[in-house]
Amino acid sequence: MAPSAPRSPGARGRMYSRQTIEVATDGRGTYDLTDRIQAVVRDAGVRLGLCHVFLHHTSASLMLCENVDPDVRRDLESFMSRLVPDGDSSFVHTAEGADDMPAHIRTVLTQSGLDLPVHEGRCDLGTWQGVYLWEHRVRAHERRVTITVHGE
Amino acid sequence: MAPSAPRSPGARGRMYSRQTIEVATDGRGTYDLTDRIQAVVRDAGVRLGLCHVFLHHTSASLMLCENVDPDVRRDLESFMSRLVPDGDSSFVHTAEGADDMPAHIRTVLTQSGLDLPVHEGRCDLGTWQGVYLWEHRVRAHERRVTITVHGE
Amino acid sequence: MAPSAPRSPGARGRMYSRQTIEVATDGRGTYDLTDRIQAVVRDAGVRLGLCHVFLHHTSASLMLCENVDPDVRRDLESFMSRLVPDGDSSFVHTAEGADDMPAHIRTVLTQSGLDLPVHEGRCDLGTWQGVYLWEHRVRAHERRVTITVHGE
Repeated sequence: MAPSAPRSPGARGRMYSRQTIEVATDGRGTYDLTDRIQAVVRDAGVRLGLCHVFLHHTSASLMLCENVDPDVRRDLESFMSRLVPDGDSSFVHTAEGADDMPAHIRTVLTQSGLDLPVHEGRCDLGTWQGVYLWEHRVRAHERRVTITVHGE
Repeated sequence: MAPSAPRSPGARGRMYSRQTIEVATDGRGTYDLTDRIQAVVRDAGVRLGLCHVFLHHTSASLMLCENVDPDVRRDLESFMSRLVPDGDSSFVHTAEGADDMPAHIRTVLTQSGLDLPVHEGRCDLGTWQGVYLWEHRVRAHERRVTITVHGE
Repeated sequence: MAPSAPRSPGARGRMYSRQTIEVATDGRGTYDLTDRIQAVVRDAGVRLGLCHVFLHHTSASLMLCENVDPDVRRDLESFMSRLVPDGDSSFVHTAEGADDMPAHIRTVLTQSGLDLPVHEGRCDLGTWQGVYLWEHRVRAHERRVTITVHGE
């Protein structure tokens, strides 16, 4: 993790902080970011506010999803694969392969950014909410995620 | 409604405030939260800023939707029921019944959080925009919603 | 563009600013807002923070999408037209025509608001991310978009 500017964690008067993290995916699937995001929030020294998570790509997305049973994310994947089939012959944009256009559509149907409430220095998620990066491309990718924390 | 900390509404220097509200649903359907959110914003004493609404669950969601004709929300419900059928035999995660996995998918296809502009002390929604909680489970549930207002 | 209140761009102590822009669409299709949003952010004088873009309508939406090959947006349009067909006989809400209810559903499946990180005075988008208004109605419409920039 690389802070965007030198700062003292928890320093008074510092309302906004930002960190960019890299996520190495090994292809289509979901990647739990919850702990990394909580670490950034803890480091930001904000007690009450918001944490914004942003993915700088158009062929992967972010989601809040049930975090206990991995079958939930497997069923999501199989649902999405049927809704937006790889290699659909109606697609014109196929330069990067059969999963190229489906990855863009999956992204538009889900989220590129999430805003999470911060309370008592932590992201105040529900008991069964995890934050996931959803890689939609079949091959491995390096994904850049920017986390902006603001509050008081 | 329970404020998260003692505060003077509209006090200068207070940029962030937060309230958690409980929404009792009586099962699948939409529940208009607009007035309750506007009341929290009014109480926050912010003139210009943002209001973030967050749902701490993975089987219900939030949406901005047309607020005049209830048929819009009925048609939405019937569309979603066809897109993600209850009891679909391809789902593995069925521990809580035929509507369990569909509720998670509906949530991922919609929103768990909404950011709304605040102007002149109110959420500045379009004329036909209402904020709804969409309960995706068939049975009644207690849902927790956190509203964070920040601005100046 | 009309600023909501008199202000000095970049003035210290000014954390929140807001502008409303009008977007004239000529019917169903996508409209690139990226440059107009970057201009508002530049004018706001915020170095580090967030830019919130909000659409005050329920039959058009906002999205982050690949910004190089127009075929991506054409394929998106054809996908969505098949997913939510105009004139579907199951819809009850048809007062304004065959594209009325599909426009509401398309909006709920995408976004009415986007939060974008601001860094060094610009929206820090990925190389291939553009911000688009997606008009879902067949006829031309005037759409109102509010951009709220906050930070330090």
